[in-house]
Amino acid sequence: MTAHVNSIINARWVIPVSDKYRDEVLNDHSIVIHHGHIIDILPTADAILKYTADEQLELTDQALIPGLINAHTHACMSLFRGIADDLPLMDWLNNHIWPAEGRWVSEEFVRDGSKLAIAEMIKTGTTCFNDMYFFPEITAQVAAAAGMRATVGMIVIDFPSAWASDHNEYFEKGLKLHDEFKNHPLINTAFAPHAPYSVADEPMQRVQMLAHELEAPIHIHVHETQDEINMSEEQYGKRPLQRLKELGLLSPSLVAVHMTQLQDEEIQQVADNGAHVVHCPQSNLKLASGMCPVNKLIKAGVNVALGTDSAASNNNLDMLSELQTAALLSKGVAGNATALPAIEALKTATINGAKALGIADKTGSLDIGKAADITAINLNKLGSMPVYNAVSQIVYSSQSSDVSHVWINGRQVLKNGHLTTLDEADILSQAADWHQRIVSE
Amino acid sequence: MTAHVNSIINARWVIPVSDKYRDEVLNDHSIVIHHGHIIDILPTADAILKYTADEQLELTDQALIPGLINAHTHACMSLFRGIADDLPLMDWLNNHIWPAEGRWVSEEFVRDGSKLAIAEMIKTGTTCFNDMYFFPEITAQVAAAAGMRATVGMIVIDFPSAWASDHNEYFEKGLKLHDEFKNHPLINTAFAPHAPYSVADEPMQRVQMLAHELEAPIHIHVHETQDEINMSEEQYGKRPLQRLKELGLLSPSLVAVHMTQLQDEEIQQVADNGAHVVHCPQSNLKLASGMCPVNKLIKAGVNVALGTDSAASNNNLDMLSELQTAALLSKGVAGNATALPAIEALKTATINGAKALGIADKTGSLDIGKAADITAINLNKLGSMPVYNAVSQIVYSSQSSDVSHVWINGRQVLKNGHLTTLDEADILSQAADWHQRIVSE
Repeated sequence: MTAHVNSIINARWVIPVSDKYRDEVLNDHSIVIHHGHIIDILPTADAILKYTADEQLELTDQALIPGLINAHTHACMSLFRGIADDLPLMDWLNNHIWPAEGRWVSEEFVRDGSKLAIAEMIKTGTTCFNDMYFFPEITAQVAAAAGMRATVGMIVIDFPSAWASDHNEYFEKGLKLHDEFKNHPLINTAFAPHAPYSVADEPMQRVQMLAHELEAPIHIHVHETQDEINMSEEQYGKRPLQRLKELGLLSPSLVAVHMTQLQDEEIQQVADNGAHVVHCPQSNLKLASGMCPVNKLIKAGVNVALGTDSAASNNNLDMLSELQTAALLSKGVAGNATALPAIEALKTATINGAKALGIADKTGSLDIGKAADITAINLNKLGSMPVYNAVSQIVYSSQSSDVSHVWINGRQVLKNGHLTTLDEADILSQAADWHQRIVSE
Repeated sequence: MTAHVNSIINARWVIPVSDKYRDEVLNDHSIVIHHGHIIDILPTADAILKYTADEQLELTDQALIPGLINAHTHACMSLFRGIADDLPLMDWLNNHIWPAEGRWVSEEFVRDGSKLAIAEMIKTGTTCFNDMYFFPEITAQVAAAAGMRATVGMIVIDFPSAWASDHNEYFEKGLKLHDEFKNHPLINTAFAPHAPYSVADEPMQRVQMLAHELEAPIHIHVHETQDEINMSEEQYGKRPLQRLKELGLLSPSLVAVHMTQLQDEEIQQVADNGAHVVHCPQSNLKLASGMCPVNKLIKAGVNVALGTDSAASNNNLDMLSELQTAALLSKGVAGNATALPAIEALKTATINGAKALGIADKTGSLDIGKAADITAINLNKLGSMPVYNAVSQIVYSSQSSDVSHVWINGRQVLKNGHLTTLDEADILSQAADWHQRIVSE
């Protein structure tokens, strides 16, 4: 007796990144998808006997991995990609990015920028992103329409913006967003207080209370630069992490992004309180913010996820490139070539991101019962042959153009390198139009 | 009156990386090629009036840059890509790479491995590489046949290999190679004493004398790890660079690769003696060898070129990825976001490599009279749009799959992403065969 299912993907390698398989690579295995979920993973030889399917795909050169999770983005800022480079964080923010945002950010900007970002992300193997920006309801709409999974931030910041004029309006609009997308199959929400230096104590406490009540993650930039620490010591007489702790934010809900400035006792505190860290190596290097002690954090038991940050400080949303940088840089920073080995690096870009966002029951690994969020990478390429170890090739050799197929929630959103839910030519031409508008002012 | 030429390339951007243009980006310009050389660079509007051509190419989405120069490779080791990862240098060398080399290195291995490497390099925009390996005459033959420019190393090492049994044989075969390729339009030779820890004083002096006589560069690994320094202090009572200086090797002929362990006075010595440094950031990070102080070296006036090292320690030969890592890491190491700005980074991957190899009169920049070694990169991509600054996009956003066309010495070796002088499918299948042979032992 065979069962009939939606799709079967037969692949040369399956890399589940799941505790169940203990970092194993499965050769010549199949993933069986039905109603958006992974319902079986088994040798292809057995799959043929056990299932028939509406669609069967032979990926003889490919490795299947869990869809990549980009744990820190400001997606629509892709329209500012390369607008100001080779500058330190505060100069870059105060004199370039914030003025440009003040002039240009609108519903239209967020819609077009988010489309550009989501198209780049899907094409490079990302199936979920954790975003922080103004007009998050627009980003959520664009993601949902593209079939992309996202955790969208209810942003809170002390300054007025095109989206909200004061704390009350930020919270009000954020909570409206939360209600609107409750129970959506692809969209989740998180609180997103911008950073310790841009959010006062009162709104920070309100975030803490609401996040506790709604069981939502708290997505925030923390300890990005030494400047930030200095400012906090001057203004509050304490380091930002200490302030967050006293405000009740240091908890398993905290998704602390950057964390380049950490004392050993702070690493221990983060571990003891079950908070998550998002490592953004390319952005941290580019802005010379500092280097996150990834190896020490992981040794202390902290869950470390990976993010690109915005394309304005990276300058792309390419998680395979970020993954390679993370694996290489961790060794350099630790002075230890065994630090963050390939499989652990791959976890930061998949299951660890899902854990940080509180969605590890749904995604982040190839496990029976989870959503079919899957990325296929072609390893039969000049830059990745021969293949002694598929995990190692993906982390150290592959480039994101080797991503051939992507599924999110069982829906095929990338097919042989072509986007199925977004119009690439149209998005490129929109980006060119925005460039014209911005530079001709 | 119009002149008739071989080819005209009309491009959206031309980035000459030449002193003549002072880091300028030329919009809507054309490069005119005749008999392998660049004979004009001018606005496309003027080119149309001034020239007719056998072939005219419209690259409306592309930036033309000088072909990338990979200043440190062991090309054929691509067949060992990923054979051993996440290990420190000496463990990796002694327990994995050297035994594998002892078992497998042969003419056939070097031929097939060099083909794989050269195919990857051309496809990712590299037009010249500086190689160090056994059977260099084979690498030279493969490069010449593929239309690839190369500086091939006359390797010298204290240990016997499949290629030579003692110092005399290394020198004899090296000099034969030098004679064979003298005046070849694509192939140059350099002396390549492996490293201070693997070449004794006597052969090192012989290298120095012969290099002086033949005006050849000396390509050598130097100060790669702290271990190397410790061994030298124990064996010779001095640091390797001091030993090379006393042996007369610290000169404008020296192409010192890695240089991750440098005291300030050593940086000054390197500058004072006009020696060149090849930075290999990804390999240095991967083996946790240390971090090259690129910003300090450049500030001291040292010419810094860029290399990938072998695919066994990188794990690819992708110079655009290396370029991005170099630009980002230099900022992180210097703690200064203005360190190694995009245009300076691009120089390390082009003109600085040509200077190090003593071929800057021929290649390394887009200048009238130089060989037409040109790489075209498509910037109308999801990962690099919009384009505020073409140099910045190439360094921080582009990936090597965006390389669309490559010319070496005026010959088009990559056309719309397709190799014209090598058979990609055949090379991939050879790599798979080698994998089978190696793992089934």
